[in-house]
Amino acid sequence: MDLATLQTPALLVDADAFEHNLRAMGESLPGSRLRPHVKAHKCTALAARQAAAGHNGFTCATVREMEGMAKAGLGDDLLLANEVLDARRLGDLEARVTVAVDSPATIEAAAAGGVNEVLIDVNVGLPRCGCAPSDAGRLADLARSKGLTVRGVMGYEGHVVGLPNRALREQLTKECMEKLVAAHADVGGEVASAGGTGTYDINTWATEIQAGSYVLMDTAYGHLDLPFRQALGVLATVISVSADHSVADCGLKALGMDHGNPTIDGADVWFVADEHVTFAPHGRVTVGDRIRVVPAHVDPTVAYHERMHLVRDGRVEDVWEVDLRGW
Amino acid sequence: MDLATLQTPALLVDADAFEHNLRAMGESLPGSRLRPHVKAHKCTALAARQAAAGHNGFTCATVREMEGMAKAGLGDDLLLANEVLDARRLGDLEARVTVAVDSPATIEAAAAGGVNEVLIDVNVGLPRCGCAPSDAGRLADLARSKGLTVRGVMGYEGHVVGLPNRALREQLTKECMEKLVAAHADVGGEVASAGGTGTYDINTWATEIQAGSYVLMDTAYGHLDLPFRQALGVLATVISVSADHSVADCGLKALGMDHGNPTIDGADVWFVADEHVTFAPHGRVTVGDRIRVVPAHVDPTVAYHERMHLVRDGRVEDVWEVDLRGW
Repeated sequence: MDLATLQTPALLVDADAFEHNLRAMGESLPGSRLRPHVKAHKCTALAARQAAAGHNGFTCATVREMEGMAKAGLGDDLLLANEVLDARRLGDLEARVTVAVDSPATIEAAAAGGVNEVLIDVNVGLPRCGCAPSDAGRLADLARSKGLTVRGVMGYEGHVVGLPNRALREQLTKECMEKLVAAHADVGGEVASAGGTGTYDINTWATEIQAGSYVLMDTAYGHLDLPFRQALGVLATVISVSADHSVADCGLKALGMDHGNPTIDGADVWFVADEHVTFAPHGRVTVGDRIRVVPAHVDPTVAYHERMHLVRDGRVEDVWEVDLRGW
Repeated sequence: MDLATLQTPALLVDADAFEHNLRAMGESLPGSRLRPHVKAHKCTALAARQAAAGHNGFTCATVREMEGMAKAGLGDDLLLANEVLDARRLGDLEARVTVAVDSPATIEAAAAGGVNEVLIDVNVGLPRCGCAPSDAGRLADLARSKGLTVRGVMGYEGHVVGLPNRALREQLTKECMEKLVAAHADVGGEVASAGGTGTYDINTWATEIQAGSYVLMDTAYGHLDLPFRQALGVLATVISVSADHSVADCGLKALGMDHGNPTIDGADVWFVADEHVTFAPHGRVTVGDRIRVVPAHVDPTVAYHERMHLVRDGRVEDVWEVDLRGW
């Protein structure tokens, strides 16, 4: 399939950049040292490529992601790195299922849903889920008393992964992980799961890293001087050209906008509307031209699209369904 | 179905508020004075309620929306208020199809795709699509020379509809519409299509108003003192409670974020992550509580969800598929 015949907006994955990212991460964090986060791509076909690269354990953010991964035969070791109050759909999965818990209620929910294994989720500084580090041991005891196997701890330094200054990232990761290590000593088990694309080579305390964005990348992580290439883009068609600006058919419903505007090579992006991006091209643009819009945040971008197109040398080599959307 | 058993996050429509909005708009702009924009809800079941309220012509932003509306039997008079370079899927629809054009290339595309009717899209001040007002007559002549029927003009004052100051909205709408009226005189035809929820009762120059958000509403339009009630919310479950903050399972992939954070009654929203909203509740919150998260922007919120739930008196009265997503 030629790119020129593709309906726009269309999510594109640059095959060379994607494979570079797989290789670069696999060399740094081989096998089970990486537990790729599927929330970044929501695509079992892409996850299968990560598994083929040696990473057989996966991180999920939703029950739907867990279900889809199990159904796709990628359920060797699935971690739902999120709290759930209704775990009933998890107990029936043909997969090894581990769930994050951070309270008596989520421990009860895991046990009631037929889940066998949990990680104690520890707040290491990001104001989100996770128990106080000093509570982790008590929660582990409670989980074991309910018949659950406690595999260890989890603690995401999400407030650190995006900091541009590497020395600061290193310092803060160390402070976060000292909390996780202390909690781990109280909890027991083999697993200390943490980290993201921005700390994948900094976080040496965790036994496994939950990076997801590395494989597709976005402009936010692009500012961090990581060895991963921008693989994701949205193909758009220029639909209108005026004297001082042009418009392409890639809007709010094709882009995650929480990290701000997307970028377009050779143009200044002015603003984005539901189905439009308005930009000032540095050179000449003609109605009908195809352009590549690079999103600021990969995860909520992918979640808008039904499929992604693997592109090599200007041709669509494969079409992957984004099959883990919804909840 | 009880709200308590609903999987979260779930898109909710308050039936009373929704029906109030339908009534209030129908009284102000009855019948064909309103051409509801389906991009705000992407739901043919909801559009059928708008049609039942007397509005039989609809505005669409994508080819997929046009297809879905035609297939649902709502194709009496469908306007694609957007430029397309590939109109082939439009020519085959069992519907009255009108397409916006603003250049020779989009006129050629409409004719080549088998579309019969067009509006000349005029730039009235919003830097997006639309020809210069002085070019509208020339483009209308070109369209007619290609065998197309030119029904009139379209010109969206999108930079005005969200301004909180009503006097300023009135003044700028007048300036925009004077451009559209002048272009209309050059173009001919009966239609002058324009306006949005923020100018629905200000824009008296247009023959029809393209408002969409009014029926569900969001917090951005909520600041404008319009007679429409907040009907849309996302039901979320509190999954984690800490000393200074709580977390619910409604994140970036359940909310349009381009207008900023959502709001939660009785709480300060701190930030939103992929599947989480972190907030500081003013009162006591318990793990497992259900809360309502109100999005800042309705359109990109709806586009993330597979279905919406019509709720009355705490029960789900109907489930509507969001069936116009994608492109």
